[in-house]
Parts: sequence; structure tokens; C-alpha cells
Amino acid sequence: MKTRGCCASICQCFFEYSTPKILVIRSFKVGTLNRITQALVIAYVIGYVCVLNKGYQDTDAVLSSVTTKVKGIALTNTSDLGLRIWDVADYVIPPQEENSFFVLTNLLITLNQTQSHCPEVPKTGFDCTSDRDCKAGSRDTRGNGVQTGKCVKYSAVDKTCEVLAWCPLELDKEPPNPPMLADAENFTVLIKNSIRYPKFNFNKRNILPYVNKTYLEQCVFNRITDPDCPIFRLKDMVTEANEDFQTMAVHGGVMGVQIRWECDLDMPSSWCVPRYTFRRLDNKDPVNNVAPGYNFRFAKYYKNGNNEETRTLIKGFGIRFDVMVFGQVTVVCDWIVLTCMTKKNIYNEEKYSYVDDFQLLSNETP
Amino acid sequence: MKTRGCCASICQCFFEYSTPKILVIRSFKVGTLNRITQALVIAYVIGYVCVLNKGYQDTDAVLSSVTTKVKGIALTNTSDLGLRIWDVADYVIPPQEENSFFVLTNLLITLNQTQSHCPEVPKTGFDCTSDRDCKAGSRDTRGNGVQTGKCVKYSAVDKTCEVLAWCPLELDKEPPNPPMLADAENFTVLIKNSIRYPKFNFNKRNILPYVNKTYLEQCVFNRITDPDCPIFRLKDMVTEANEDFQTMAVHGGVMGVQIRWECDLDMPSSWCVPRYTFRRLDNKDPVNNVAPGYNFRFAKYYKNGNNEETRTLIKGFGIRFDVMVFGQVTVVCDWIVLTCMTKKNIYNEEKYSYVDDFQLLSNETP
Amino acid sequence: MKTRGCCASICQCFFEYSTPKILVIRSFKVGTLNRITQALVIAYVIGYVCVLNKGYQDTDAVLSSVTTKVKGIALTNTSDLGLRIWDVADYVIPPQEENSFFVLTNLLITLNQTQSHCPEVPKTGFDCTSDRDCKAGSRDTRGNGVQTGKCVKYSAVDKTCEVLAWCPLELDKEPPNPPMLADAENFTVLIKNSIRYPKFNFNKRNILPYVNKTYLEQCVFNRITDPDCPIFRLKDMVTEANEDFQTMAVHGGVMGVQIRWECDLDMPSSWCVPRYTFRRLDNKDPVNNVAPGYNFRFAKYYKNGNNEETRTLIKGFGIRFDVMVFGQVTVVCDWIVLTCMTKKNIYNEEKYSYVDDFQLLSNETP
Repeated sequence: MKTRGCCASICQCFFEYSTPKILVIRSFKVGTLNRITQALVIAYVIGYVCVLNKGYQDTDAVLSSVTTKVKGIALTNTSDLGLRIWDVADYVIPPQEENSFFVLTNLLITLNQTQSHCPEVPKTGFDCTSDRDCKAGSRDTRGNGVQTGKCVKYSAVDKTCEVLAWCPLELDKEPPNPPMLADAENFTVLIKNSIRYPKFNFNKRNILPYVNKTYLEQCVFNRITDPDCPIFRLKDMVTEANEDFQTMAVHGGVMGVQIRWECDLDMPSSWCVPRYTFRRLDNKDPVNNVAPGYNFRFAKYYKNGNNEETRTLIKGFGIRFDVMVFGQVTVVCDWIVLTCMTKKNIYNEEKYSYVDDFQLLSNETP
Repeated sequence: MKTRGCCASICQCFFEYSTPKILVIRSFKVGTLNRITQALVIAYVIGYVCVLNKGYQDTDAVLSSVTTKVKGIALTNTSDLGLRIWDVADYVIPPQEENSFFVLTNLLITLNQTQSHCPEVPKTGFDCTSDRDCKAGSRDTRGNGVQTGKCVKYSAVDKTCEVLAWCPLELDKEPPNPPMLADAENFTVLIKNSIRYPKFNFNKRNILPYVNKTYLEQCVFNRITDPDCPIFRLKDMVTEANEDFQTMAVHGGVMGVQIRWECDLDMPSSWCVPRYTFRRLDNKDPVNNVAPGYNFRFAKYYKNGNNEETRTLIKGFGIRFDVMVFGQVTVVCDWIVLTCMTKKNIYNEEKYSYVDDFQLLSNETP
Repeated sequence: MKTRGCCASICQCFFEYSTPKILVIRSFKVGTLNRITQALVIAYVIGYVCVLNKGYQDTDAVLSSVTTKVKGIALTNTSDLGLRIWDVADYVIPPQEENSFFVLTNLLITLNQTQSHCPEVPKTGFDCTSDRDCKAGSRDTRGNGVQTGKCVKYSAVDKTCEVLAWCPLELDKEPPNPPMLADAENFTVLIKNSIRYPKFNFNKRNILPYVNKTYLEQCVFNRITDPDCPIFRLKDMVTEANEDFQTMAVHGGVMGVQIRWECDLDMPSSWCVPRYTFRRLDNKDPVNNVAPGYNFRFAKYYKNGNNEETRTLIKGFGIRFDVMVFGQVTVVCDWIVLTCMTKKNIYNEEKYSYVDDFQLLSNETP
């Protein structure tokens, strides 16, 4: 009897349907208020979401390619090299990179190195008084070669362990100040940047349509007079980042060149222009200036008359410019595409809040 | 009296509880309709959201490494160099890059430059009739050296200012057409790409498991016959981007090689294969073709018998290939992980719309 | 009559307003339960969403610059080169890259190549018995030069087609094992990484404030004893990725150095420190090891006494280290900014679930 009652109860429950009781108010006053509220909500959705917030637009990320070309001549006059001209093939290392270029601004040069024996540079751990202080075969990370086990004269005063190395060794000294290639501040660089928004098949480049060959041959970027010229003077870029070129050139550093494309394809495509900003990327905190700047070593290899390999070692200090392209494009999409796609959420959100407002109102009304 | 009434009123309000009145309909017809609706909604959530939209899956972005290796031989025959072979060490500059490689296709060569004096190339600003037209020490960005202040003979007709520079100067002429390394169209490149989805500990590379050494030694990518061969003929890549290789090779350019990995780890891992697409990245708009192509200057340095430095300057035109890897992987997650994690929102959204549909119906029913 | 009735009906419908009937329960018990529930919900929102989930924080992506500097000396002893020292200018190729550096660990060297004629390396397709087997002008992608049409002696046994190429040709053999520059495991690299969160004007670098010059001169990264030292021993990095350095050095490979900055700017800025992880990026699947490792060819060019160009061809095997910087920073924002901005959604979500819980309860109560 009880089981049967339970069954009946479950069955009854299954076919039970609960619904809130609805009160229908037929009133001119309340009805008008209701419709006005609805009209306001619709106006809000159309006006605010669609027109102002551009919620109906579709966006796409940028696909970009960057090439650079530096121009300029520097003159140096040193006892080692005499009067010497430096051109782009000498000071851009390596000659091409993907989104970056390096300009040599200062250097320490060691000429005519050969694989031979010479005394180590005096430093803790390399000083000696007799051969017993030196260990044949020892190769210290801070050293310049492999020790031969001999203790030899470095200068009239110092004796250091002899090493097999590229001799003569580079002298561990501060870079020249003012920098050797101080002329680098007047070098210019042409930055060519092509962008593409694959979704909308939209292409553009930073050499704008009105820029012709004549203009490009003599223009230099200036935020006020020549904002569309894609040729930048190195000093101007560094100055815009609130740095001093000659100071930065001594130890080197890293600069960021930011190109921003924010295009609204509802507007004429000629309104879609790049904006350039410059920023120093490496830290130059005066308090925490351990290992400052940017330098690296490279060599040019030669063979002398006896078919022996010699090289010129260069410790190069300079500025690396990293070109970074940012950008988003927005385009109108038709309503049907929209409702089937991702932007749906925005509308749904607005729809929900509409329901909420209405409920609030309706709760207050009775 | 009034204050006390107000207090009592607030107190009453605080303990007041409003709830909609519920009408319970015990009807076979309405109850059945109710349950059918619920069943439809559940079927929709399971069928559409879970199976079709894969809302239950988790995703991860790709971690990628790219290495490339170009192969091929080009032959040139010029009055300067005679018959000359170019191999990979000659035409890939620099020899290795992170996600990119450059192939030299055309060049202007200036042999045996030394640091010396020579007349500037005739151009506006460098022409002169007497020494008074030249300013010693002047270094124009468009020039090739530092002026000595002398006006010297450039040719039988022209006189230009003398400069200290790498002499003889490079002649400012158009690159050869057809390109010097026209053979480059038959060069092949092996692109090795390893991907990793750290979240799922899933690794794969574009040399698929069934590809053996013998196949790899002779295959060339072809979208129909060899879609899994990771060796690409340069001409094929350029042709797929709707460009002509020989035309592009004259002035150079930038190509994008896109590798897309879109893997569903619910499926066998052998279904997870890369798709390759090719696209020209730099602009070649015929209307706006100021500063077209891609070129840069580099030099090879020698020392002659007198220990004097000489160099061969090369203005190299060529194609830079930027390899871009895209990819997303999706994997099933168990229900508990899911509800605790980000995908929650999708379910909630569906749950909300379920409530809405039901309300719509319930409002109509009575 | 009917039209008028319809009009009236539509009109009536327009001014009709439906609202659920509300039951107001004035009960101490139910009211208290209601308020306790509300209090719990508010506590949940403040406690869980704000304090634990930090839903009130704003985030920003990182802007980063990386420079690297390798140090160390390797010694090789071969019949070709004799005893020879390798320093950073010899084994880092190219000398500088944007977010990457390559260290040579093994090599096959071919000395004194000149543009001349020599027999091809014996391989299928290049073997011959008479001149008829060779085709003048033929240039196979797998070959090393352009065939002259002659069949010449390669060794006492083999005859191969003669080619115009950089002769003598490189011998196609396996790289030495153990690797030539086995000493590379003790090389160290200083990785300098500066980051910047533009939105919050927050800068930091991986050389932490307390690190002074003396410490930086002798420290080496160790996860336990020196977790903040930005100088890494190459072997340690490879070992942390569960690889054997000497094995990897034979054929080369690609390593990923991941630097993670996850900073909460609510906390002292000294808590914001980088975390380093190391991972091998290229595949070394023992089953699918076709074309393993990483190598490329490069050359050093010389001119001999007769002004003829000669070169030393190097097939270099080595490890490329790709430095990848990840990071997100979070900062407190004030409430007003918050409600006007993107984080709004989180609150809305919580608000909705609050409504749900409440409804559930309220439905059960009567």
C-alpha cells in the first residue's frame, strides 16, 4: 500500500508543473510606462552599444614584415688605424636581421692576433712569481687562454702565467669616451614596414601613397613637420626616449622602435596611418648599474704571407634597435554574421541587463 | 510617536520576505509538455555544446622551434669574377638566424676597395667646378665618404668633390635583370619545426613518423603528391604566393612561410599534421612602388701583401623567408576539472538560456 | 466591425502589462533566514572574489629586451689545425642576435678551398665509367658543383664526374664523437633581461638590486645556492632539461631558456623576481630521428698571394639557445575604475549566481 502510494506520488510529481502566477494589468498609465522603458532600452542598445562602443565591429590582429636600411659615414682617427672611414658594411653587424638592427658606436680593437703564447692580463689568479704558481692545461672562464705552466714577464713589474691564446691579448679597459663613432648620431635609417590583416584582405605599408621618390630621398622623420617620413635620424630616436645619444653610445644599449597601426576600416583607408614611438628597453638605473650597456666581440680573419691565420678582434659597443609592430583593425560586419559569431556575447549581456532592469521595474510597479 | 513608527516600519521591512506566488498545475498534458521541453534542452546541451562545439575541451598555445637548411648550387659568369660557383656558405647571410633565412638572388659587387681618396659619384650636391665648391670635412648622409676639399675629375666630362672613402666607390646602378643567381629558384630548403604543448606534454615535429631517411633525401614538397615532405623548392613557395620568382629575385623581397598546427588530441595523434601556406609579406603595389624589394650591403675583408686592408663590397638583393608557426591544440577534460575551471562560463551561458527558454514557455502556458 | 475589434485588441495588448504576483511574507523566521543568506553571499563575494581570486586587480603584458654574453675558452688538437684555441669571437655565430645565441660545439672543417675543378664525392648519380655518363652543365641539388662533362679518378677504385666547385670538396662524414669543442660545457653566459609594464610604468631587470659587481664576477646560477645569479653554465642548462651535454653537442640542437616574471605589484617590488626554466625544443625522439640536431655551413674568406680567393668551409654543429620571456603583472585598481572597465563581467557573473542561489532558496521556502 505504501509502495503504491510512493509510486503515485512520484508519478504525480513528474507531471506537476510549477509556474509563477502572472498578474496582467490593463492600464493606460502602467502600459505606457512599460513601453517607454522598453523604448529607452532599445535606444540604449542601438545608441551606446552599436554606435559608441562599436560592438558590431569585427577585429583582426596584424601580420607584419620589417626591413631596415642604415645610411651614414663615420670618421675615426686613432694611432692604431690612422684616419679611417666607417660605412654601413663596417658598422651594421650582422648585415641583416629579422626585426632588429645593430649600429656600432664605440669599439676596442686588438690588431694582428695569432694563435701563440703570451702572458695573461694581470688579474687575481693569474699573477705568479715562479712556474709553480701556474698549472699547465688550466683554463679559467675569466682567462683568455689555456695555461702553459710557465710564469713569464708581463711588464717591468708584473709576472703572470703564460697562456696559449689569440695573442696579443685584448686589454681589459673602459671604452673610449667620447665614443669612437660619435658621428653615428647623424646616421639615418629607412624602416620599411608592410602590414596585412588576413581576415579582411587589407594591406598597407608605412611608405604612404603620397610619398614619392623625391620626398623619400631627402626627408627625415619629425613629429611635427614630417610625421609620415619613414626615415629616422638615430639621434632623434634616442632623444625622443629622453636619452642622450653620446652618453648611450659609449657603453651601448637597446632601443625599442614601436610602430602602432590602429585602423578603423569604416573610415577611409587613408586615415589608417602608423604612429611611431621610441623607448629605451635596457635598464640604465644609476643605482643598479652593474654590467651596463650592450657589447659583444667579433673578429675579422686574415691569412698572412706564410698562410698563418691572423685576426683583428673587435669589442664592439653599440645600439640595437628592436622594431616592434602592434596593431588591430576593426571592420563593420552585417547583423546576420554577427549573431552567428563571437560578438553575440556582448548582445546577450545587454539583453540580460535589459531583462534585469525590467524586472526591477516590474517588481516595484505593483 | 512618529520616530517610533518609523523604527517599527524599518524593522518590519527588514524581516519582510517577498517571493513570487507559485501556481502548481497538476495536469498530464502540461506536465508532459514540460518534461519534453526539458528533454529537448538537455539534448541540445549535450548534442550541440558538447559534441559539436566541443565546449568541454581544453586548449593550449604552441611552443615552437624552427631550424632551416638550404641546399643548391648557382653558377654566375661575369667579367669581374669569371665563372664562379655559389654554394650555401656564399649565399645564406648570416649563416644562421632564429626563425628566418635569407637567400641571395642578385648582387652588385665592388672589388678591391681600400681606404683612400677618389672622386664622389656624380649627384646633385657633389658636382663641382673648382675646390671652392667642396668643403673639407663635410660628410653628407647621401655621400660615400668625407670630403677632402678638392675638386677632381670623375670622367672626361664630370668633376666631383674628392672624398676619403672605401675606393673605388660603388656605382649607383640598377641591379642586373635577369638576376645573377637565377639558379636560386631550384634551391631547396629543409624546414625542421618541433612543437610542444606544455600543458598536455604533447610533442610533435613536421618530419612525420613515417618519413624515413631515403624519402627525405629525394622528396620535394608538393601540395598534391608530397604534402608531408618538409623540403621546399624556393620557386614553388614563391609561385604558391602568386608571385614570379625571377621578377622577385631582381630586387628581393620578404616571404612568409606559415606553418599551422591545429590538433585535436581526442583523435589519433597521427591526424595532427602541419599545414603549410606561403605569402609575400612586403608590399609590391605597382602604384606605390617607392623603395621596392629588399637589399643590404656587406663586405668581405682581406689583407694584401703590404698588410693593407682591402674589402669586397656586395650590395646583396635577395629573399628573406620568415617562418611563422601558429597552432592550438584541444583535449578532452573530465567533468570535475571542467566545472572548476575556465570553461564553466560556456555551461553557465547555456544554463541561463535554458532557464530563459523555459520561462518563455511557462509564461505562455497558463 | 471585425477590423475595429482587432484594432481594439491590438491596442489593449499594447497597454497590457504582465507581472508575477508577489507574496510578501512578514515573518521573523523567514526574514532572518533571508538576511543571513544575503550576508553569506556578500561575504562570499568580498572574501572569495576580491581577496582570494583578486578579481579587483588589473593586469598588463610584458615588454622585454634580452642581451647575452658568452665566456669561455676551448682547446682543440687536430691534425689539420694543430693545437688551437677557440674564444667567443670564434664560436658564437653570428656575433649578436635579438633573443638568441648560438654556441659552436662540433665541426667538420675543409681548408683551402678555391674555385676549381675536382671529382664529385662518390654517391648514386655521380659515379661514372666514361665521359658519356656525365652531362656538362648539370647541377644536381645533392651535388657540390656544376658538372664539366668529364669523368675523372676520385680514388684508386672510384671514378666520378668532375665538377666546377669550391675544391677540395667537403667529405660527407659523421661529426666527431666526442665533439671537438667538448670544453663548451664549461662556458658561461650572462643573460641580461630588462622588462617593462608600460601601463603601470614599472621597470625591472634580472640583475637584482642587491647583486654587485664582485658577486657578478664569480657567481654561477644554481637553483639552490645562487637562484638570482644571471650567469648560467651551459652544461647546467642542458642538464636541467634532462639532456646530456656531450651527447647533444655532437649533432647540435635547440634549447629554450624560459624567463618567467609573475609580479603582484600589491606586494613589495623586491618580491618580483624572475624564474628560470630550461627545456630542449627540438625533437630527439629516438624512434623518429631522421635529420637530427642542428648544423649549418659557413666560410671564412681569404686572398692568397696571387690575389686568388680561398676559403675555409666549416660545417658547424652546435646548440642554439632561444631566450623566451613570459610575464604578467597585476595591480590593484580602485573600485570606480573597476566598475567602468572590463573586470565588470566577473562581478556580474557573481551577481547572477547570487540571484540563482537566492531563487533556489526562495522557491523552497514557501
